Amino acid sequence: MALMVGARVLARNLLRPWSRLPDAVPGRTGPAAGGGDGVRCFGSPRLLVETDPAKGVAVIKLKNPPVNSLSLEVLTEFVISLEKLENDKTFRGVILTSDCPGIFSAGLDLTEMCGKSQAHYAEYWRAVQELWLRLYLSNLVLIAAINGVSPAGGCLISLTCDYRVLADNPKYTMGLNETLLGIVAPSWFKDTLVNTVGHRVAERAMQLGLLFAPAEALRVGMVDQVVPEDQVHSAALSAMAQWLAVPDHARQLTKNLMRKATADRLVKQRDADVQYFLQFISRDSIQKSLRVYLDKLRQKKG
Amino acid sequence: MALMVGARVLARNLLRPWSRLPDAVPGRTGPAAGGGDGVRCFGSPRLLVETDPAKGVAVIKLKNPPVNSLSLEVLTEFVISLEKLENDKTFRGVILTSDCPGIFSAGLDLTEMCGKSQAHYAEYWRAVQELWLRLYLSNLVLIAAINGVSPAGGCLISLTCDYRVLADNPKYTMGLNETLLGIVAPSWFKDTLVNTVGHRVAERAMQLGLLFAPAEALRVGMVDQVVPEDQVHSAALSAMAQWLAVPDHARQLTKNLMRKATADRLVKQRDADVQYFLQFISRDSIQKSLRVYLDKLRQKKG
Amino acid sequence: MALMVGARVLARNLLRPWSRLPDAVPGRTGPAAGGGDGVRCFGSPRLLVETDPAKGVAVIKLKNPPVNSLSLEVLTEFVISLEKLENDKTFRGVILTSDCPGIFSAGLDLTEMCGKSQAHYAEYWRAVQELWLRLYLSNLVLIAAINGVSPAGGCLISLTCDYRVLADNPKYTMGLNETLLGIVAPSWFKDTLVNTVGHRVAERAMQLGLLFAPAEALRVGMVDQVVPEDQVHSAALSAMAQWLAVPDHARQLTKNLMRKATADRLVKQRDADVQYFLQFISRDSIQKSLRVYLDKLRQKKG
Repeated sequence: MALMVGARVLARNLLRPWSRLPDAVPGRTGPAAGGGDGVRCFGSPRLLVETDPAKGVAVIKLKNPPVNSLSLEVLTEFVISLEKLENDKTFRGVILTSDCPGIFSAGLDLTEMCGKSQAHYAEYWRAVQELWLRLYLSNLVLIAAINGVSPAGGCLISLTCDYRVLADNPKYTMGLNETLLGIVAPSWFKDTLVNTVGHRVAERAMQLGLLFAPAEALRVGMVDQVVPEDQVHSAALSAMAQWLAVPDHARQLTKNLMRKATADRLVKQRDADVQYFLQFISRDSIQKSLRVYLDKLRQKKG
Repeated sequence: MALMVGARVLARNLLRPWSRLPDAVPGRTGPAAGGGDGVRCFGSPRLLVETDPAKGVAVIKLKNPPVNSLSLEVLTEFVISLEKLENDKTFRGVILTSDCPGIFSAGLDLTEMCGKSQAHYAEYWRAVQELWLRLYLSNLVLIAAINGVSPAGGCLISLTCDYRVLADNPKYTMGLNETLLGIVAPSWFKDTLVNTVGHRVAERAMQLGLLFAPAEALRVGMVDQVVPEDQVHSAALSAMAQWLAVPDHARQLTKNLMRKATADRLVKQRDADVQYFLQFISRDSIQKSLRVYLDKLRQKKG
Repeated sequence: MALMVGARVLARNLLRPWSRLPDAVPGRTGPAAGGGDGVRCFGSPRLLVETDPAKGVAVIKLKNPPVNSLSLEVLTEFVISLEKLENDKTFRGVILTSDCPGIFSAGLDLTEMCGKSQAHYAEYWRAVQELWLRLYLSNLVLIAAINGVSPAGGCLISLTCDYRVLADNPKYTMGLNETLLGIVAPSWFKDTLVNTVGHRVAERAMQLGLLFAPAEALRVGMVDQVVPEDQVHSAALSAMAQWLAVPDHARQLTKNLMRKATADRLVKQRDADVQYFLQFISRDSIQKSLRVYLDKLRQKKG
């Protein structure tokens, strides 16, 4: 399957010059669970990709237990998978969902931002930037099937999609809650939220670090649809059918028309954004906040 | 009828950036259908203008059967009529509506964009730009009395108004549905919609080419009022009375404050926008899409 | 109490070089009405400041009867009080409310804009700019407890806050109604409203000079909460507790992220904005409008 060829090379080209993938994981293929219906799989231990070439649709399942945190490895594999699908004309749409019960994604991996070198922080931040740019400007139809809680970076991923379906479970809250950890979401997280729910809702939600339960998320426009938990995937597929009914070229140009100005604000200052992140994350007070938070998490588990 | 004299010449003057009307064309006046109430008419075969000088209000009725498509001639006459009303201090407000049953306007005239010369495309596009700029920044109070379906450019015209009243008929859908024809609305169509319904609703609606039925159009803010079909005109007149209760000068400056930045984005790059349109519309794939679509329309009629 | 030292000097530094405070009022201190609970007061005849150092919260009560108009003196004292609180690490949040029954604030003081010298107009306008900038970018949590009508500049003050609680009294309308007086709100009033209720609601509301009753203000997002009149203060305190639960530094940076671009638009052209105001307010037609309006107000009282 051509899709899988040269994942290692792709990764280098893609994330160069800041990223090496010493242990880039070549995809594996295999029959889908149900078998026999043309669905094929590839991916990695942390990112399962099920493809349905006949429908032109792939499903990317985050699988980084316990909370689908976006480690550098996950980010890298995510970008590689997206690029593979983007470059393969077989595929027109992707459903993003989680393989971890009850958790869509806990967001950025705080262990990547705590107690590491400046070079590591920079590499990590560039990978976060890269994933956002890939998702936000993807030519593919992206639909989020949100089957678990999605704080911070987990919420961001869903916000970059063209359509969001959320499982109707009061525990599955979502929002950019960075302030509650004592940290600040970058301007492009903010832009993505403002473009989705408007300035005022974003202003209040981000300052308070609000996590919205499904009904409220629907009310403010953070998601497009709330459905019973066992219907999330089928609802996402139905929505995909509607989006794929539109001619690709016209839809892609229109998407670009809506989003390019926002993306360009980051593209024009990626290095400055990395520097800003480095300064912020290197502060003693921030490192201390993160250590305290991570210690708490470890105690909970322990 | 003076208005029609030299429409082609006028069009040329009008649709250049330096457009002036050195000898504004005197309309013809006459008793209104009902007579005796001071209503006077002028206009052209394709654009009926009924004026009520006592109230300071004019009604512009699009009359280009069967679907009020915005041909070059209609665009030109529209701009001329607006300019006349704008320059005549008698008039403070205009109601835009349709004389064709069931159709407000089908939007841009695809026959003007298919199988013609580059020069023609450029002339046509400048006329579209000109109408949008005139409407969007008009000093007059503009109220849309939407008495029929209004896709694409038909929707755009209503969106430039200060207030929109839509007849409550489920067939009277409205929206920027260009993608479904395989074409892309220009950035200033997008800006106009975003300024009306916000970024997220616009993003989804434009990519999917959604046409909103009245209840939904009201819910997302695409129109301000939905009324029974036989009350559209009276509701528009009531709204006009409210808008005319505001001192003109303060209202006009405030309108400018709200809209000038958006209009300036086009004004600053009109030529580039024309060039972009020429490149787009001249593509074989686009011309083919349009031919297929126009053939279908002709077969329906035939 | 160190807070009160040198109000006169602070004022000069703060508003220099355009502002003089010929009769700056040094604060007075005293026990709170209830006494004994640690609440302390300072302020001036026109601005009562009650502080609760234990909670880190201050209450600023406008007290410029009969309508809390924002005279040059009130603006100056307001800015001084804000700066004092901002610089005192004891305080993290401020509740803005009114000491005048039934009136939050009638907005800018028209007598400061009518029949005075150009120098006075310029001084006044700079003070209006200064107050807006201080409020809009305040590091403090600002909560408006709107216990009365708040047209024009009164509405603006509440819009700069982080959260708005409005008393549920149909007489307590709010909005930027400048057009009805024949004047035009400046671009930064507009920006503040757009950031709160979106472009379309702002466009219609500002052109028509709409004043929203509580239910409607809540519906369009002009306020966050409507409560019975006797619960406005307690609701503001509850909201404050929620906002103060967020780490200050992260919240302040996030607020800045949301608002700095808007504030910078004024900061970059303060002088031009003053010149624009001078030209506008000096027009005979505007001065006449204001005189007519002020005469009417005086006759009402008389």
